[in-house]
Amino acid sequence: MKRYEHNPIIRPEDVKPSADGMEVIGVFNAGASLYNGEIILLLRVAEKPVSGSADRVAVPYFDEETETIRIKTILKSDPDYDFSDARVIKSRSGQKYLTSISHIRVARSTDGVHFRISDTPAIRAFDKYTAFGVEDPRVTRIGEDYYVNFSAASYFGIITRLFKTRDFEEFQDLGNIFHPDNKDVAIFPRKIGELYYALHRPSTSEYGKPDMWIASSPDLVRWGDHKVVAAVREGSWESARMGAGAPPILTEQGWLILYHGADEANRYCMGAMLLDAERPWQVLKRLEMPLLEPTEPYETTGFFGNVIFVCGAVEAKEELLIYYGAADDSVCLARSSVKELLARMGY
Amino acid sequence: MKRYEHNPIIRPEDVKPSADGMEVIGVFNAGASLYNGEIILLLRVAEKPVSGSADRVAVPYFDEETETIRIKTILKSDPDYDFSDARVIKSRSGQKYLTSISHIRVARSTDGVHFRISDTPAIRAFDKYTAFGVEDPRVTRIGEDYYVNFSAASYFGIITRLFKTRDFEEFQDLGNIFHPDNKDVAIFPRKIGELYYALHRPSTSEYGKPDMWIASSPDLVRWGDHKVVAAVREGSWESARMGAGAPPILTEQGWLILYHGADEANRYCMGAMLLDAERPWQVLKRLEMPLLEPTEPYETTGFFGNVIFVCGAVEAKEELLIYYGAADDSVCLARSSVKELLARMGY
Repeated sequence: MKRYEHNPIIRPEDVKPSADGMEVIGVFNAGASLYNGEIILLLRVAEKPVSGSADRVAVPYFDEETETIRIKTILKSDPDYDFSDARVIKSRSGQKYLTSISHIRVARSTDGVHFRISDTPAIRAFDKYTAFGVEDPRVTRIGEDYYVNFSAASYFGIITRLFKTRDFEEFQDLGNIFHPDNKDVAIFPRKIGELYYALHRPSTSEYGKPDMWIASSPDLVRWGDHKVVAAVREGSWESARMGAGAPPILTEQGWLILYHGADEANRYCMGAMLLDAERPWQVLKRLEMPLLEPTEPYETTGFFGNVIFVCGAVEAKEELLIYYGAADDSVCLARSSVKELLARMGY
Repeated sequence: MKRYEHNPIIRPEDVKPSADGMEVIGVFNAGASLYNGEIILLLRVAEKPVSGSADRVAVPYFDEETETIRIKTILKSDPDYDFSDARVIKSRSGQKYLTSISHIRVARSTDGVHFRISDTPAIRAFDKYTAFGVEDPRVTRIGEDYYVNFSAASYFGIITRLFKTRDFEEFQDLGNIFHPDNKDVAIFPRKIGELYYALHRPSTSEYGKPDMWIASSPDLVRWGDHKVVAAVREGSWESARMGAGAPPILTEQGWLILYHGADEANRYCMGAMLLDAERPWQVLKRLEMPLLEPTEPYETTGFFGNVIFVCGAVEAKEELLIYYGAADDSVCLARSSVKELLARMGY
């Protein structure tokens, strides 16, 4: 696997803010798909209000009543709030706010490296479940339809929502497909037997750790028969949490899964595993070591440093173009091939 | 609503332990159904190993390899563990153990008050998702089938599992229907439009509070289109968490929901609300005050005091027999009627 030499390929300054008064602070964690002979990226664009200052934080959220993004201002001297995490502000009563709000933006490219980025959001906060923004999209093509699932945060927790499109311009809302807290959903691109399958990542509040699970569905909206696929490994680079990245890629040996794992220090790496083609809840092979670790400056430093986070990969001309978010800051590209990745797993 | 004068109707001493070396410490939170002219209760029976002592706790769990209940012993002097909650032991690393393990036992009655309790468990821990036991069953009759859903705790979190039976002797396993953490699932007894519906209670780890949600399903196994039905109310008796109790009861005014709410002091009361018959995610009416609060000695004192927790109710001869767990200790009965409860809600 090789990083593209001119990484990052998309930076915050390449993206036009969605509204006056907002500033783009990150573009990262992009879903990817082939569409109409081009490579499409669905970018997660994080913005914050420019009205923040040294002594106050401006917190953006979608307000259901006015159907607009509103700004709540919190004084940094307020002892009721914890400002230690750059991404999240916690109140003493347990209420959380995000310091930025994300939307999803379409970008298109013919070479996979140079992208034309739309000036306006494709999907943005629009209801009470998405009030803190829409994040980390994945795209799965099934027939002529492209299914876009994304995480959304709100006062009600973190859910996964599903949209469907045929042109990346009009989207149909299929509702909340996983209840809180759940993220890192990656839908398989075809039925296996009679059912669709998706990897998902519950974030349990008791007993469990954030492991990788699988569920099946007759209609892509309603999911059940939940099983654990792979669990975090104590003392490893993936000891704290893990979750699926790009939608599964069918190979001659089984389903190739590119995923992320993180340790207690919140260092996110890319890993790989292979699932059985017919029984996708069975792990055939899991790489001990990461495929890619944050080592480059654009990966180690940023809005949230030491993060490599994959949401999309595209097969083009024998090559696998793997798009990943670096440091919650920029979109980067790594190149490999299915053949190379299978070889690394001993096939 | 009137408590039965000889409450509790079932106590721990009425239940035979499931195995030598185990002691029944609680029988509570029972699902209820009419079956073959009798009232069936599915009792949650909590047992602990008799091998515990003043200086050590014996923690029971189902071991997948040996397929038996095994006992782990933890010294009370071990500084790595927190013993402050009677129900749960927490290790410093975040690992939790339950001090007891629950199974589900069938009891039958002709008068709704005197029950013949089976000597052996109907459903018990049997795999990695149920390793810490099976809890809080609800029964929903649909046609000739009785669907029994229950919570299960394990290293992988708290899931909801679904079984199906026609005779309460043989059960068919339909898998994990809600991913961690989720409990308090109550399945509606018929399709509404083309779909089945269930109330459920995600326990979010971030942002959200444990509110009452609803989902729909084509097959009772796979659930989606999740929506919030009702949220906790700050400063009230139901400020910390809430969850459905008995399966919804269809009335002329809509779906009658008996549920529990708890405050920050873990005081659990029974509440009532009415949902729209055709659009069950819409609350038509919600009682401000509890229907039933823990005031009797058997409700205020027990394994975990100040708890009234409803899992089942049965309509028999114009009367509503409401079975509830008291203090995680015993099964109690309260009597009301649909007419009376609707009147309390202003109908």
